Amino acid sequence: MTTARTNRVFRLRKRPEGLAEEAPLDLVREEVGPLADGQALVRTLMLSVDPSSRVFMSDIRSDLPPVGIGEVMRGLGVGQVVDSRRADLPVGAHVLGWTGWQDYRIADDAVLEEPFAVLPDPLPAPPEDLLGVLGLTGITAWLAVEIADLRPGDTLVVSAAGGAVGSIAGQLAKERGARVVGVAGGADKCRYVVEELGFDACVDRRAPDWRERFDEATPDGIDADVENAGGEILDHVLTRINVGARLALCGMIADYSADPAQRHGLRNLVEMLEQRAFARGFLVTDHVDRYEEITAQLAARIADGRLKHSRVVVDGLENAPSALERIFRGDGRGKIVVRVAADDS
Amino acid sequence: MTTARTNRVFRLRKRPEGLAEEAPLDLVREEVGPLADGQALVRTLMLSVDPSSRVFMSDIRSDLPPVGIGEVMRGLGVGQVVDSRRADLPVGAHVLGWTGWQDYRIADDAVLEEPFAVLPDPLPAPPEDLLGVLGLTGITAWLAVEIADLRPGDTLVVSAAGGAVGSIAGQLAKERGARVVGVAGGADKCRYVVEELGFDACVDRRAPDWRERFDEATPDGIDADVENAGGEILDHVLTRINVGARLALCGMIADYSADPAQRHGLRNLVEMLEQRAFARGFLVTDHVDRYEEITAQLAARIADGRLKHSRVVVDGLENAPSALERIFRGDGRGKIVVRVAADDS
Repeated sequence: MTTARTNRVFRLRKRPEGLAEEAPLDLVREEVGPLADGQALVRTLMLSVDPSSRVFMSDIRSDLPPVGIGEVMRGLGVGQVVDSRRADLPVGAHVLGWTGWQDYRIADDAVLEEPFAVLPDPLPAPPEDLLGVLGLTGITAWLAVEIADLRPGDTLVVSAAGGAVGSIAGQLAKERGARVVGVAGGADKCRYVVEELGFDACVDRRAPDWRERFDEATPDGIDADVENAGGEILDHVLTRINVGARLALCGMIADYSADPAQRHGLRNLVEMLEQRAFARGFLVTDHVDRYEEITAQLAARIADGRLKHSRVVVDGLENAPSALERIFRGDGRGKIVVRVAADDS
Repeated sequence: MTTARTNRVFRLRKRPEGLAEEAPLDLVREEVGPLADGQALVRTLMLSVDPSSRVFMSDIRSDLPPVGIGEVMRGLGVGQVVDSRRADLPVGAHVLGWTGWQDYRIADDAVLEEPFAVLPDPLPAPPEDLLGVLGLTGITAWLAVEIADLRPGDTLVVSAAGGAVGSIAGQLAKERGARVVGVAGGADKCRYVVEELGFDACVDRRAPDWRERFDEATPDGIDADVENAGGEILDHVLTRINVGARLALCGMIADYSADPAQRHGLRNLVEMLEQRAFARGFLVTDHVDRYEEITAQLAARIADGRLKHSRVVVDGLENAPSALERIFRGDGRGKIVVRVAADDS
């Protein structure tokens, strides 16, 4: 039985002009039409907001084309089937995939060819973790630490150390015997990174003398970097790298402006040459074949308490843009998700 | 028998302030004292000038400390023993090593622990080639093409394509089936790169519309880059890289200023992340264990005519600074060396 439902949808109004700008999204209400054969209606329960959300809005070359003007904002979510005319998506089933920044999405054969998977029942973990530490952000952290190729005693720098990726990466690196130095925004967050997550040190990038503090915190230079920030932080990291340093480029949140003139101009790349360093950019979505293995590793560490993780759950789809702004302000600890609806199961 | 000799020596007056500045070297005359036991006097025959000469003058972190103020300018040369009080360096023997920018150097046990090797007699190749295509520049080109990891049909960009490293790297890449696009300064040099060296295309970086020309010359994007320039060229290269691109950082001649403010600010490094690219800086001097093997490969290609190479021989030690300026002006083809003295053998 299908009842008329109203879908709240964030549609992209225009391309954002700067990182500081509020996300140019319009929240509109649209009727959900009746389902055709082979369709199911998925209600978004929990939505992930990520630095890459900003990339999706912008005219930046990436693995996916930018969201078109007027199109539904792209976003990964956990959803639940609330109406169905296909057997493989029964009512009550949970899915993980591109729900979009909206209440409802109609799933059909085409959607199921996207990353849009039916989750086991009961859910193996809370939706916020399936979008966080046990999802793409945790897997990104794992892959970054692999690229950093750490040996015991190496100094690793992790930027955005209190964020969803950085907070996990630093703990995984500690396990490998590295000395881990975080960079994070604010004294409170630095305390969290050191006292709760166990990093060896954390530099407050908002302090006026952060560069001097950073140099003091890396007396033996830097052997590896898990880079989530880019911009002036990466530029300073380069001045401290040792011979043979490894840079894992997971995120460059300071540089997600489509206009190169709005990005920080990196002046120290020559250090990569003189120090014979290497840098590797990667996107977690290229490594689907490793999701299961890595997620199992992460889950084991959460189960036995080795791996700590925080989440900020923002209530209400309407607050998704402000949740995204929190990431760019560096306001939040760990993964930030938006609760769109309650689970009916 | 020892006769009093006068040594002309280039000593560093101060650190250079910009790349455009004339090298701040003083040419002074000094008497060469008598040899002690265990010493030999080596006369410089041929001196290599390189982009790294500028690094040596500057307060830039590298594998060697900068030349001290008042010290002899560091430089690699081919020399000949003209007086000796040690058996392993007999008069007439040729050596390859840090002769310095001077007529004479006294070699002793300490010097022989540097890269300072006795060459076979007769010389396997002319001194200018032992410093060029069969020396560190040729080996650098070989290693760069290895890092570029080319498959047939890949598009490779080579900056400073008419230079000592670029001219060799491009030809080695053609052999591997790549489409090779050079970037060089001036229409004449571009013609040389395409018509004589066999590159598929060459973009004149002095043309006002070089970026558009570059994009036209790389219609399928860029799979690999042998980077000798850095600066705005590398920044534009980044906008054209394909997924999985490999960047071999051999030289960043535009960025060899000790003052980061004088370097080009790279704004497109985020492309490395989104395109999952890889960059590796390297210095040929880390790969001494491969010199013999690679030199043999290069020599075979020269012998059968597969590999073309040019040299500019500048006469007179006094002209070494202007020879170095030619590199930074992009004026010259292939390897630039300075003939300091005639071979006595």
